[in-house]
Amino acid sequence: MDETQRFITDNKQRFLDELLELLRIPSVSADPAYNQDVLNTAEKVAEFLNAAGADNVEVCETSGYPVVYGEKIIDPSLPTVLVYGHYDVQPADPMELWESGPFDPVIKKTEIHPEGAIFARGAADDKGQFFMHVKAFEAMNKSGELPCNIKFMIEGEEEVGSSSLGEFVRNNKEKLKNDIILISDTEIISNDQPSISVGLRGLSYVEVEVKGADLDMHSGVYGGAVPNPINVLSRMIAKLHDDDGRITIPGFYDEVEDLSAEDRAEMAKIPFDLEGYKKSIGIADIQGEKGYSTIERASIRPTLDVNGIWGGYTGKGAKTVIASHAYAKISMRLVPNQDPEKITQLFADYFPTLAPSSVEVIVKPHHGGHGYVLPTSDQGFQAAKKAMTHTFGKEALATRGGGSIPIVALFEKELGSKSVLMGFGLNSDVIHSPNENFGLFNFYKGIETIPYFFQYYTEG
Amino acid sequence: MDETQRFITDNKQRFLDELLELLRIPSVSADPAYNQDVLNTAEKVAEFLNAAGADNVEVCETSGYPVVYGEKIIDPSLPTVLVYGHYDVQPADPMELWESGPFDPVIKKTEIHPEGAIFARGAADDKGQFFMHVKAFEAMNKSGELPCNIKFMIEGEEEVGSSSLGEFVRNNKEKLKNDIILISDTEIISNDQPSISVGLRGLSYVEVEVKGADLDMHSGVYGGAVPNPINVLSRMIAKLHDDDGRITIPGFYDEVEDLSAEDRAEMAKIPFDLEGYKKSIGIADIQGEKGYSTIERASIRPTLDVNGIWGGYTGKGAKTVIASHAYAKISMRLVPNQDPEKITQLFADYFPTLAPSSVEVIVKPHHGGHGYVLPTSDQGFQAAKKAMTHTFGKEALATRGGGSIPIVALFEKELGSKSVLMGFGLNSDVIHSPNENFGLFNFYKGIETIPYFFQYYTEG
Repeated sequence: MDETQRFITDNKQRFLDELLELLRIPSVSADPAYNQDVLNTAEKVAEFLNAAGADNVEVCETSGYPVVYGEKIIDPSLPTVLVYGHYDVQPADPMELWESGPFDPVIKKTEIHPEGAIFARGAADDKGQFFMHVKAFEAMNKSGELPCNIKFMIEGEEEVGSSSLGEFVRNNKEKLKNDIILISDTEIISNDQPSISVGLRGLSYVEVEVKGADLDMHSGVYGGAVPNPINVLSRMIAKLHDDDGRITIPGFYDEVEDLSAEDRAEMAKIPFDLEGYKKSIGIADIQGEKGYSTIERASIRPTLDVNGIWGGYTGKGAKTVIASHAYAKISMRLVPNQDPEKITQLFADYFPTLAPSSVEVIVKPHHGGHGYVLPTSDQGFQAAKKAMTHTFGKEALATRGGGSIPIVALFEKELGSKSVLMGFGLNSDVIHSPNENFGLFNFYKGIETIPYFFQYYTEG
Repeated sequence: MDETQRFITDNKQRFLDELLELLRIPSVSADPAYNQDVLNTAEKVAEFLNAAGADNVEVCETSGYPVVYGEKIIDPSLPTVLVYGHYDVQPADPMELWESGPFDPVIKKTEIHPEGAIFARGAADDKGQFFMHVKAFEAMNKSGELPCNIKFMIEGEEEVGSSSLGEFVRNNKEKLKNDIILISDTEIISNDQPSISVGLRGLSYVEVEVKGADLDMHSGVYGGAVPNPINVLSRMIAKLHDDDGRITIPGFYDEVEDLSAEDRAEMAKIPFDLEGYKKSIGIADIQGEKGYSTIERASIRPTLDVNGIWGGYTGKGAKTVIASHAYAKISMRLVPNQDPEKITQLFADYFPTLAPSSVEVIVKPHHGGHGYVLPTSDQGFQAAKKAMTHTFGKEALATRGGGSIPIVALFEKELGSKSVLMGFGLNSDVIHSPNENFGLFNFYKGIETIPYFFQYYTEG
């Protein structure tokens, strides 16, 4: 891969400029206001694939946002790697907390990134990361060192549950046929400690509504005598956890995979600085399920978090009103073996039972997704480990990620192939938050490492 | 008062048109955006007082919104009635629930008001009600039947805690000197059953903030391991009531006035249709403190209600984020003898103790106010009762209101005079809510009744 690495070194600045171009388009899939921007981003991705030398590049229509496809088949008898990524991003709010425009990328040096990091929504999740693959492919291709076949599938609905991807995959099994799926949408432990995520949590996401009176009431005239949906919703949410931080939904833990003492001991080896962790996010203390370490709580244990809550008067000053409605968005992170549809149903059955007879409760399911585990014996994992170990000069560890990439379970089911989660981000990238950023070190390290994955995987 | 009543009959339409003019100005004191409108409303009120024949009309500067003053002293040896009211209104939101513009008053017939009701923010609270006094005064004055002296004090900060009124009253004791204060800012039981409010609840209002991490976090990466301010706030709010609906703040009930069995028996006489009550506001069931009737829960018992709550992602779609902050506005309705400052302090001391060590809690006090009781033996109450009984043709009952008019306690302290709460609204006026309305029957009945109050009070 010497030619390839030389090509990368010679084109570093251009690679970065092209990424910034991509980051300037606000492809927020959750907000219809950005509809055209999301579509424009798909076209832009197709352009880059063509420029990199991909064949049969296509912006594939779906019932939602398009999937961008491209491929390079050098020899049908050689293995085929399918690269998955997504070009859509999370909403940028709260806007006021961004130090620079979320869609106006800037390079700034930070403590963790002395050589600079790219600050922009999507810098790490996932534009910056899938783009590493486009550039690594370009480098291998233009250097004549592409060792096997490659296919790209870059979607635009990952942040809203990949609602159209299932249908797309089912309808294009032949086109998407592959031996291994390679995804960079996760983190490494640190820039000194490479790691590969071999486990992901699934997701169940619901929106709940508690309805009291038909309209907002005067809290003086009615206070104390009628149900207050906000107080009621608060009590219901409070009852979803017991005092040990365990989720109270009946049957919630039934299918939870219990890790062996060995596995837990293995996890305990992962370097973790609790004080640094607390300091990095500014919390006085950690909090979670009794009997588990912070790393376990954030990876192998299921969770329930309220992601948003609203009701009543939230403006300036004081309004003495009893709201007619209160709402919350609640998500549950699931571990392997927990079925999202089943968990969502368990929640929908249980939650209303926490309400008094005085109110109405509505539970609206959003998207969900299964958890996932990749055996460390898998050839894909081995190739990724060798590639990272080579470029970082330190042995890559296997970690379990807390986030969800629901589609990896879908891929296994529909395409019958495993996914390798070789991400190059850091927890400190604060994806989904203001000032999301992606280190230049990480961006370039990814581009350099990916070609070795292709080499080692092809060598088998 | 025959001439006066004739004058009223002859000018009904004009009185209504003038009120509509007043209702068209959006005098929302809680929202700085309406600053100029609030000031314009004060000027308009002064105009009407002048037109009605008041002397020394003045828009009095305060540290906040002005107080409009006016008087008619016919004979210093006669008693003086001070009329209090407020020209500011509650915010109109949620706007989308208004069937007509909140500041574009319309007359519509309803089941309760076959002869029509005025739909507009402030129609009943309190523009429509204080304006009855301006018109009753005009009628008595122009008919030469004003039996005693009258003073007007119409403020513009009642909906935001009358923050400047205390200072104004203390600085103008001589000017405001009076024998009795007359206020119409409360309800009657029904248009067939007149009543006078002899008790009001006080108010303590706080805003709370729960802070977790420094910024919003990815719920997949951090979920389960870090404090979620929304979940935490929900648990804290849930702990503010026990399972019997009693407030758990230590010392909260210490000064609560316990009504005698006789008083409670007297209250039980007030006609109350539970099914009709539930139906009128669209709730499946009532809810409140164990051991008390709905009327008691809404009048003689203190309460705690969350008036607003917000945090995290509340936009379209699903965002998997753990918010850094969660907020709530919480108000407590207090009964006579409960001191708002003390209760606010009890809350501020107790609330943070409900939080885990992982979060920071901030309690910001808003305005408050004392409860109030008027003895039914008071001459002012007797005059109001006789006046209402005369014009309604049915004996007026004494009720305890649930709302708060903090300034009545202030008046008693600073001016040494009692306040008579002779309101003409109905619970169904839905003040503070969308589609607030005030019956034409109630508007005119008020104008007709007030002169008799002056007559009976002067006769002593």
